[in-house]
Amino acid sequence: MTTVFDRELGELKEKILRMGAMVETAIRDAVASLVERNSELARKVIENDHKINALDVEIDEECIRLLAIRQPRAGDLRFITTAMKITTDLERMGDLAEDIAERAIELNEEPILKPYIDIPRMTEIARGMAKDALDALVKGDTKLAMDVIKRDDEVDLLNVQVFNELLFFMIQDPHTVSRAARITYISKYIERIADHATNIAEMVVYLVEGKIIRHMEKPEG
Amino acid sequence: MTTVFDRELGELKEKILRMGAMVETAIRDAVASLVERNSELARKVIENDHKINALDVEIDEECIRLLAIRQPRAGDLRFITTAMKITTDLERMGDLAEDIAERAIELNEEPILKPYIDIPRMTEIARGMAKDALDALVKGDTKLAMDVIKRDDEVDLLNVQVFNELLFFMIQDPHTVSRAARITYISKYIERIADHATNIAEMVVYLVEGKIIRHMEKPEG
Repeated sequence: MTTVFDRELGELKEKILRMGAMVETAIRDAVASLVERNSELARKVIENDHKINALDVEIDEECIRLLAIRQPRAGDLRFITTAMKITTDLERMGDLAEDIAERAIELNEEPILKPYIDIPRMTEIARGMAKDALDALVKGDTKLAMDVIKRDDEVDLLNVQVFNELLFFMIQDPHTVSRAARITYISKYIERIADHATNIAEMVVYLVEGKIIRHMEKPEG
Repeated sequence: MTTVFDRELGELKEKILRMGAMVETAIRDAVASLVERNSELARKVIENDHKINALDVEIDEECIRLLAIRQPRAGDLRFITTAMKITTDLERMGDLAEDIAERAIELNEEPILKPYIDIPRMTEIARGMAKDALDALVKGDTKLAMDVIKRDDEVDLLNVQVFNELLFFMIQDPHTVSRAARITYISKYIERIADHATNIAEMVVYLVEGKIIRHMEKPEG
């Protein structure tokens, strides 16, 4: 038998997934606006961020309401408090997409420094991590969550690679400095998006297994 | 009359302040280990991070327990859910202090590039922001919280200044690149610590005034 509370929890999960899809789109469009030199698209990302923020507030208020009215216990209580933390991460990922879009607009006004290869690769990994972390939350799938956490290393490595390559440009030709610095920022923003996805995945593992994975040491290598 | 729940809430506030003090010490020691070239101190920061993490888990569990047993309403309910989010920010600030300590150990093994001037200044501002954000939380002082939010711009400016100065070093002499890059990372870590303090301050304003300040546009300039 499905209770009103079950339906409300189902709607909460749907809203979180919807917020996640909006964040994913913002990330994809922000990087596309850079790669395709489409500042119109970048401005759209910036304009749309308030929708992500509005959904964050809406989910937060809904969680508070459920805590007050339904007085949930055990698993449901933990799910709701985790949801409140997760949407904070999602909201910050949306802000980072906006930051990428802002740097893209600046970069699109100058000649292209080099074709973007690693940045789109990093972005695809980070977006996949965000998507899978939320799927893991909704399905309670710790295996998927652990897989998200593992992928964070790839993004970190690509970020270092991008940084070193751009440093080389800056050293060779000081005229490239302002552009190269902006691209290193974008790379760092994507790395932070992946970090937020990792945080979400760690919270999912904790939620399901009661293990505080976010405080465990990373294996070497 | 003081109820058991009042006492529990008081203890929760105390624990949050204790966690804040530990994070502040970690930030101060991490930067001191760089400025004073004291890698022993840096290793202490890294070793002690697990204590911050343990307190994060303890506070989280206490919040869950209070939500389940006391079934708080209105202001208390909001305070507890906000506390859970705030300790997540504090925990990440502790991680950033650990990141600073790691870079300090690496830098301390090489000749000094230049005296550190802006980094300690940024750190003092960021530490003060963290302290005041938590004081604002405990006292419900939105004026103090708004003041914390304003100070974030100073840290952002100093970070850009540090970045530009180090870029100049890298361009002049490629031998400085690996050291200069590490210092830019430290500067970025401190900037992110200030961002977390700002997040906390914004949550305090929301808690007290019900205003979603974190989604308001920043004034120009």
